[in-house]
Amino acid sequence: MRIAVLGTGRIGRMHADNLVQHADTELAMVYDVDRASAEAVAERHSVRAAASAEEVFAASEVDAVLVATATPTHADYIEAAVAAGKPVLCEKPIDLSLARVNETARRIAGADVPIQIGFNRRFDPGHAKARAPAHAGEIGDIHQVVITSRDPEMPPRAYYEAAGGLLRDMTIHDFDLARFMLPEEPAHVFASASRLIDPALMSELGDHDTAMIVMTTASGRQCCINNSRTAVYGYDQRVEILGTTGMLVSDNVRADNVRRHGKDETEAGSPYLYFFIERYRQAFFAELDAFVAAVREGRPTSPGFEDGRLALVLAEAAYRSLAERRAVAVEEIT
Amino acid sequence: MRIAVLGTGRIGRMHADNLVQHADTELAMVYDVDRASAEAVAERHSVRAAASAEEVFAASEVDAVLVATATPTHADYIEAAVAAGKPVLCEKPIDLSLARVNETARRIAGADVPIQIGFNRRFDPGHAKARAPAHAGEIGDIHQVVITSRDPEMPPRAYYEAAGGLLRDMTIHDFDLARFMLPEEPAHVFASASRLIDPALMSELGDHDTAMIVMTTASGRQCCINNSRTAVYGYDQRVEILGTTGMLVSDNVRADNVRRHGKDETEAGSPYLYFFIERYRQAFFAELDAFVAAVREGRPTSPGFEDGRLALVLAEAAYRSLAERRAVAVEEIT
Amino acid sequence: MRIAVLGTGRIGRMHADNLVQHADTELAMVYDVDRASAEAVAERHSVRAAASAEEVFAASEVDAVLVATATPTHADYIEAAVAAGKPVLCEKPIDLSLARVNETARRIAGADVPIQIGFNRRFDPGHAKARAPAHAGEIGDIHQVVITSRDPEMPPRAYYEAAGGLLRDMTIHDFDLARFMLPEEPAHVFASASRLIDPALMSELGDHDTAMIVMTTASGRQCCINNSRTAVYGYDQRVEILGTTGMLVSDNVRADNVRRHGKDETEAGSPYLYFFIERYRQAFFAELDAFVAAVREGRPTSPGFEDGRLALVLAEAAYRSLAERRAVAVEEIT
Amino acid sequence: MRIAVLGTGRIGRMHADNLVQHADTELAMVYDVDRASAEAVAERHSVRAAASAEEVFAASEVDAVLVATATPTHADYIEAAVAAGKPVLCEKPIDLSLARVNETARRIAGADVPIQIGFNRRFDPGHAKARAPAHAGEIGDIHQVVITSRDPEMPPRAYYEAAGGLLRDMTIHDFDLARFMLPEEPAHVFASASRLIDPALMSELGDHDTAMIVMTTASGRQCCINNSRTAVYGYDQRVEILGTTGMLVSDNVRADNVRRHGKDETEAGSPYLYFFIERYRQAFFAELDAFVAAVREGRPTSPGFEDGRLALVLAEAAYRSLAERRAVAVEEIT
Repeated sequence: MRIAVLGTGRIGRMHADNLVQHADTELAMVYDVDRASAEAVAERHSVRAAASAEEVFAASEVDAVLVATATPTHADYIEAAVAAGKPVLCEKPIDLSLARVNETARRIAGADVPIQIGFNRRFDPGHAKARAPAHAGEIGDIHQVVITSRDPEMPPRAYYEAAGGLLRDMTIHDFDLARFMLPEEPAHVFASASRLIDPALMSELGDHDTAMIVMTTASGRQCCINNSRTAVYGYDQRVEILGTTGMLVSDNVRADNVRRHGKDETEAGSPYLYFFIERYRQAFFAELDAFVAAVREGRPTSPGFEDGRLALVLAEAAYRSLAERRAVAVEEIT
Repeated sequence: MRIAVLGTGRIGRMHADNLVQHADTELAMVYDVDRASAEAVAERHSVRAAASAEEVFAASEVDAVLVATATPTHADYIEAAVAAGKPVLCEKPIDLSLARVNETARRIAGADVPIQIGFNRRFDPGHAKARAPAHAGEIGDIHQVVITSRDPEMPPRAYYEAAGGLLRDMTIHDFDLARFMLPEEPAHVFASASRLIDPALMSELGDHDTAMIVMTTASGRQCCINNSRTAVYGYDQRVEILGTTGMLVSDNVRADNVRRHGKDETEAGSPYLYFFIERYRQAFFAELDAFVAAVREGRPTSPGFEDGRLALVLAEAAYRSLAERRAVAVEEIT
Repeated sequence: MRIAVLGTGRIGRMHADNLVQHADTELAMVYDVDRASAEAVAERHSVRAAASAEEVFAASEVDAVLVATATPTHADYIEAAVAAGKPVLCEKPIDLSLARVNETARRIAGADVPIQIGFNRRFDPGHAKARAPAHAGEIGDIHQVVITSRDPEMPPRAYYEAAGGLLRDMTIHDFDLARFMLPEEPAHVFASASRLIDPALMSELGDHDTAMIVMTTASGRQCCINNSRTAVYGYDQRVEILGTTGMLVSDNVRADNVRRHGKDETEAGSPYLYFFIERYRQAFFAELDAFVAAVREGRPTSPGFEDGRLALVLAEAAYRSLAERRAVAVEEIT
Repeated sequence: MRIAVLGTGRIGRMHADNLVQHADTELAMVYDVDRASAEAVAERHSVRAAASAEEVFAASEVDAVLVATATPTHADYIEAAVAAGKPVLCEKPIDLSLARVNETARRIAGADVPIQIGFNRRFDPGHAKARAPAHAGEIGDIHQVVITSRDPEMPPRAYYEAAGGLLRDMTIHDFDLARFMLPEEPAHVFASASRLIDPALMSELGDHDTAMIVMTTASGRQCCINNSRTAVYGYDQRVEILGTTGMLVSDNVRADNVRRHGKDETEAGSPYLYFFIERYRQAFFAELDAFVAAVREGRPTSPGFEDGRLALVLAEAAYRSLAERRAVAVEEIT
């Protein structure tokens, strides 16, 4: 499958590399508003840098598109891909505005073009291998899910300015993961968010760097999410699923399994893998596998557009909870 | 120090055993409303079974009392101990009614008799060893505390009828632990509680078997508590402290360090220690050590009466949060 | 059971404490060639310090004896205990001379007095819990046993002068453990020993501080022992049993389960428990349990005199292997 | 660098895949005595299948060769590569006959063509990351190395017939790893080998399936190797380095970090990665990196021809030890 990459920033470049390495895909062409960036990537992989996004959608030698551009373009490009009949794998979030996402939903309703949203964590070998037996009943009925998700360090100021706030930018992955792990949809959301790491910057931007969220389902199942922008020991990515007959934990990952023993410590491991590109490397590949296989075999892509929309609904509920210091019913958000 | 034990149920008997084994204490006498129970314990340790609680408080050969009776008697016995000038180590909770606790607080105000509340977990070697460096600044500023606290199995129906509800009975230990681990007092409490393990019984009794609580301090520090009445893999007791320069985790405990490897698994450990008597055995001894040392050296006992009261305040705030589905300010509770 | 303790050095004092704390035993009296030492322990436990070992063996209020004196007295005291008809729990080794041990064996042959040798490690909860399923066939046929046994630090010079050499003093525990873990007796022994930690002292004393031993059984099962006098990370005591359908590992033990995470490390644990008194505390109690129960119920004590003798036979074989740089058949040693 | 692969069996195919994926290498052509096998691989990667090995060595479009053919051809092909002036990365062992290896050594003496032997384990991230600090003095002086190396299951009979015996085929990796980990060369070798897994087949073939080896250096440093052909819990590959101020352990590797907890077990992990292709995937890539970089930069390749020879010398010493049941001095082997 010949796939074009829109957006050649850090994530776009990683996807371009993966498309080249993947046995079943080819990098068809690349595009970026920053022409120089696109051309550098194009040259590196001996492909063409398109002059515009339109050119990509119109190109007959492009079978599908991978959208890794700035968030405000995602909805437009999804719509363009659908119009062009090209399957699309789009990075999260679909948009920072739920109204905009709902509008896209209306516009693409009824279209039969595969859309997959880049919730890469669903494809992590550990997370996937914890979920499968849990959903197959191996730990009985699922009662609690605990998601720990902490970035290794604060991104630069410019990042925050475009990101849309901690809960829409970072926690959105965890909202999706919560939906993936729970056997039923979250019905209520309570959010708490703080400015602890860089209170001055966070206050100035109206953003947060630390959060705890509790979600409950209609039957009372619970999910807790713990977020922080700074875990100096590495990207902290854990999922714990408690059931009536057992518990499954998908634990952190290191680059090696060396353990140090000394006068003051035993079994000290290396720091966890630094960040998402390292930690979720296999997940990004598996995500691509799933996209290609679903498109080829005419099966529904997953996570799909509605999954992207529902994660944003949970983020909106969380922001309302934050403002009103109460548990917000998901159905309040429309 | 000659210490009398009031209450010879499961916990009282454990304390009696500990007093006998402890190098610095003697079991002075025992008392229980169930005379036969008291006499069995008295005989086992070759001490006297008092005919009444009053007899214990009046006895000159009793230097201090350990209260392990039913909850509704705790406040009375604390008041009696204070009146008798005998230092008292009283099991939690002081009372299920905050009004009653406040009344006792007024009655004993100004008295100089040491009172210690049996929040044994503060004395667990792991929890204590995680807290000390955290409070000494070794992981920088403390941002998040995550407490996992799950019982191995549901207690019998009769237990629930007297216990006062999940948040007052079980979570109260975690409310105290949260206060112990956080560098400032919780200011807001949000609670979510469910009926998942035995919904019929829990509904009938108006109780819950599963809970998640989020507390925040004035500066935005956060603490999450995860509770369940059933963790089939053993008593799940973990504390995680995230700071700006590191994380400290006090992990679960097993009876042995055997690891099994087979066709389908590697490094499989034994189940965690079954319940509090096994898991917190060292903690109960250390609690006694601290009580005896504080009394002898005239230092303040800790955790004290006010710690017992504040844990109950948090439980009350949690119940109000549950009823009103909102974060409750601790100062609302009086 | 009223048990007298002969020898009030470090191990003797520990045993005296255990006898006092154990529910089924009483410390009957103590004896030591160093009268002051014996009297200090006697006073601490409010018992009598005997004027001579003979007095102990003759005392009607002594039901059994626990021998923790210097090694050269062990064989004599075992013989005296047998003559007096008093069951004896004797610290290892029986003697440093196999000829002397064999002589005692002849002298006590046919006597019906229970003798147990203090190979405490057999009673460690982890080691015992690894062995039981292995011997019950849960990991199929046992092929390899790997014993890691490293002391935390070098003992003082005086210790070496009486100890009889690394393989008779320290490895003897591992020789016994190997016999306990293997399903058949070792038939050949190959030993390698070095002077690496304090080469000057070891050369002067003709002793070693580091060793690796390989033993094989008649059917070819193998056991490897790794010894060192210095493991700065704590007393390193591991046993690994490899079978055809699995592996069981009895791993090291810490005082707490705290794990530290920081910029340069994750999951760093506390050092392992410092030395045998801490690490094998439960084992020493369980050893006492087993002795008391066997004597009371008239069952054979285990490990018995012959186990003590056979461990020394392996040590002798190891020394011959060292001298001749070859695998020595156990049957060569008589 | 354009590299040809000689031998398109399991390992050759893996190397061909790696050459295609590696950013700095190209698969130049392939060759195998089994023409169909070579053509299948050639077709898969769109390269040419050479008609003979000679054709490969003569081809101007081949910059270097990777030898993954049957063992008896290795020495010839190394000689041919040297004659052709093409750098060569050759799978272990160089030959099963030390005489043949020595002959090749004489023949290529003085030639300046880079030769690297495929001791892939040196490049494992864990093993490498344990060795580096150990050799940099972070754990003081190195005293003991313990290598556990167990295959997941018995290879087919045909494999044994060509492999040259357990110690030359399997342990040779560990002999090299021992040399890599120890700070000085092994001086004495003691080997013990058994027929426990399939005694009938092993006896018929004169081979072994289980081994323990102890090696010592001139100064008394020790290394123990534990081998088995069957570890049902996965490919067991561990290295432990004990120094005077600490211990470094390179532990086993799993496909994911999921931990299961249930009624009878806690923290049960997935089986270890099945075998060398999975376990040492990163190592094979890093080996290639090192080869390419050394050749390009004109630095010595490592491990080189002499490393391949010395590993075989240790295997020969081990076989002599086995035959004579004694520690064999490495200098006895010529």
